[in-house]
Amino acid sequence: MVLTTTEFDTIAAISTPPGEGGISIVRISGEEALDVAKNVYRGKNLDKVASNTINYGHIVDPSTNQEVDEVMLSIMRAPHTYTKEDIIEINCHGGIVATNRILQLVLSNGARMAEPGEFTKRAFLNGRIDLSQSEAVMDLIEAKTDRSMKAAISQLDGNLSHLIKHLRKDILDVLAQVEVNIDYPEYDDVETMTSKLLREKATDVHKRIVQLLQTAKQGKILRDGLATSIIGRPNVGKSSLLNHLLHEDKAIVTDVPGTTRDVLEEYANVSGVPLKLIDTAGIRDTNDKVEKIGVDRSRKAINSADLVLLVLNASEPLTEEDRQLIDATNKKKRIVVLNKTDLPIKLNLSEIKRLTKAQNIISTSAIKADGLKGLEELISTMFFNEGIASSQNDVVVTNARHIGLLNQAKSALEDVLKGLDEGMPVDLVQIDMTRCWDFLGEITGDSYQDELIDQLFSQFCLGK
Amino acid sequence: MVLTTTEFDTIAAISTPPGEGGISIVRISGEEALDVAKNVYRGKNLDKVASNTINYGHIVDPSTNQEVDEVMLSIMRAPHTYTKEDIIEINCHGGIVATNRILQLVLSNGARMAEPGEFTKRAFLNGRIDLSQSEAVMDLIEAKTDRSMKAAISQLDGNLSHLIKHLRKDILDVLAQVEVNIDYPEYDDVETMTSKLLREKATDVHKRIVQLLQTAKQGKILRDGLATSIIGRPNVGKSSLLNHLLHEDKAIVTDVPGTTRDVLEEYANVSGVPLKLIDTAGIRDTNDKVEKIGVDRSRKAINSADLVLLVLNASEPLTEEDRQLIDATNKKKRIVVLNKTDLPIKLNLSEIKRLTKAQNIISTSAIKADGLKGLEELISTMFFNEGIASSQNDVVVTNARHIGLLNQAKSALEDVLKGLDEGMPVDLVQIDMTRCWDFLGEITGDSYQDELIDQLFSQFCLGK
Repeated sequence: MVLTTTEFDTIAAISTPPGEGGISIVRISGEEALDVAKNVYRGKNLDKVASNTINYGHIVDPSTNQEVDEVMLSIMRAPHTYTKEDIIEINCHGGIVATNRILQLVLSNGARMAEPGEFTKRAFLNGRIDLSQSEAVMDLIEAKTDRSMKAAISQLDGNLSHLIKHLRKDILDVLAQVEVNIDYPEYDDVETMTSKLLREKATDVHKRIVQLLQTAKQGKILRDGLATSIIGRPNVGKSSLLNHLLHEDKAIVTDVPGTTRDVLEEYANVSGVPLKLIDTAGIRDTNDKVEKIGVDRSRKAINSADLVLLVLNASEPLTEEDRQLIDATNKKKRIVVLNKTDLPIKLNLSEIKRLTKAQNIISTSAIKADGLKGLEELISTMFFNEGIASSQNDVVVTNARHIGLLNQAKSALEDVLKGLDEGMPVDLVQIDMTRCWDFLGEITGDSYQDELIDQLFSQFCLGK
Repeated sequence: MVLTTTEFDTIAAISTPPGEGGISIVRISGEEALDVAKNVYRGKNLDKVASNTINYGHIVDPSTNQEVDEVMLSIMRAPHTYTKEDIIEINCHGGIVATNRILQLVLSNGARMAEPGEFTKRAFLNGRIDLSQSEAVMDLIEAKTDRSMKAAISQLDGNLSHLIKHLRKDILDVLAQVEVNIDYPEYDDVETMTSKLLREKATDVHKRIVQLLQTAKQGKILRDGLATSIIGRPNVGKSSLLNHLLHEDKAIVTDVPGTTRDVLEEYANVSGVPLKLIDTAGIRDTNDKVEKIGVDRSRKAINSADLVLLVLNASEPLTEEDRQLIDATNKKKRIVVLNKTDLPIKLNLSEIKRLTKAQNIISTSAIKADGLKGLEELISTMFFNEGIASSQNDVVVTNARHIGLLNQAKSALEDVLKGLDEGMPVDLVQIDMTRCWDFLGEITGDSYQDELIDQLFSQFCLGK
């Protein structure tokens, strides 16, 4: 279902991040984008300038004839644009007031304020990109590391779409074949042949979906970050470890305007794995005071974590609290960090090995910055080399919506196979195969509902 | 002193505000901008595309051949560009990681990281704009209201420069005439004639500088905001008044990334007057508790204010504390706000009028939103109609540096007049006239020192 451009009105928004900067952009898209621009721009004759050109001029309030800003105006004519509509981009000097003023002028001269994600929504509705590519645009903007960015750009380039479309085509072929067989049942073995065909194809597609879903765990981490808790008794060096992980260029997002201050999330980029550090305030707060983090408090941090960094003090014997913490994390992805190895070792290593089954133990001296590189490598290895070959080139499913749909498609295929096993009529089995085809289509947006689309694009940032 | 482009290397920076948004721009300027771009861009042949065009393509890491982002690349060839150098602007999908990655690629492929304000500095050093215009660029970005934006755009258009250059030309003419008279003293009355000429011109220029300086107070307010304190006893309605002033679209800047949280400044736009509200935390903090703001604490807020809003409770008799607050603000620009007029009036109005000389008293009911419009109008009137005709079209001096230089130029002219009065030789008087000419030249940057330039542009934001 692709709508044509003419059904849409002309929209505008500030497309650069909010704040003071060297350049801000007011973007206009729609059939009347040029007319709107002509109302407020004094410079060249926009009717005569070529597409994809940048034109010097001024924005002028037509009601008072007063200059608002000196600008460069970009003109991109349909259909080879972001939205497939005429697009005007007004590059102005930046600043909050001037940029808002220009937007207001544009809005009072024929454009409507764009909703969040509406430019990208039009790119989708006008058929330039599919739904998974639209979602990749948002993922790209929100990417926390190089690797997550790479996954997004691959998806934006249509690699996931290509794969899904391939699966759908295979399903459609078999459905068509089944249809033919049902309509022309002149041969004796038609029922057997059709069942065999359905079984083969369902098994094949099922296998490919399972493979795709195997990338999802990694994809989710790439997209949302690996929820990581640093736990341990007071004064074992959690704070130094945290500071090291957040060190300089590794700290990615501190806070973004508009997000709530209270739930500040800290991200660290560890060899391409984005760690979302949980409950860091607790670690920071207790810098100068006696820490009050008991096992109970830690348990909460443990439960919500994908990865636990359990810090022990190597220069002291193991305490009862340490043992409880080891016990509480035995079923988690965990790295045991033996810290303070610059001091004489008093920890009973063989007991540690016994308690932890000798898995993922690493010695560090956070003070001397010893062993920290090894820790980072271990984190990276645990999440990129276990089971999954490489995220470098393969398609990685990163999006919760896609994962959900792939799971639904997978279970529809299982229904197909079950139906065949139970000797159900082919035209009933066919329904489940068609459901699988539909679920996959929702990923690319080939089959979709309007509410889904509205809900999905509303999560975008303004101006995109 | 105008340097040529070739002395500069090629620079790059992110020119859009930091954060997540629909579009971010990496800007490159310099002789090698195109070569740098060619290293990382895959799309059209940039050697063959015309200037001022926008070109679709991808940014690719040349060392790994991996795609980083899908972009629109703008090419603007020297000399008709912002810096008068070749400029490349890479418009990418926004997002922190992807934008930084592109900048890094550009930096590792031939460009150097730009210093804050360095693009605008080049526009100045390459002779496209003068110093006061460069400063207007920054003012425009930091503008807090429409009026301050208008003052900045007028200055950017060169209106102040034009006026200053006019003054300088007049001075230069008279200096040349004096020179001729000194060199060819064949006429008897040459000394008298020259003195007369100098006196006339000095008087004339002095008058015009004084006029310009009269706009400065208003200009400073436009630029920095009018430091405003809301004071009064506990529970008279300061908090409601504050909330009204900050209401919705009136609150301009809450906080900008990178500024310190602790010294949060709140701005309100009151009919074009930007109020910088002082010590609002004090007002907010005491919402639920018993307020502890005594006269002493208020005195601090009074001293640092350009305008005091003294709130009295009209439904109670005047207290000793009220009288002290009136007394403490008698020498300030002050508006006495008689609040709570929805309740029966118990305040002795004639006493108020006597104590305040009946100036600038206004009745409000913050709860019922009565009289608040009148208060806003009074603030606006006090600061735009007293003495100064109108800021709509005139040149307004907004910049502290300009004000300082105008004052120095003015006092040099006073030295000229004093010298003439005391019968000093014309060639000595001439020195002061030349000093005046130099001071004015520093405003436009016709005469300047390198340190000044470095210091001045370092205050700009990155990427401008």
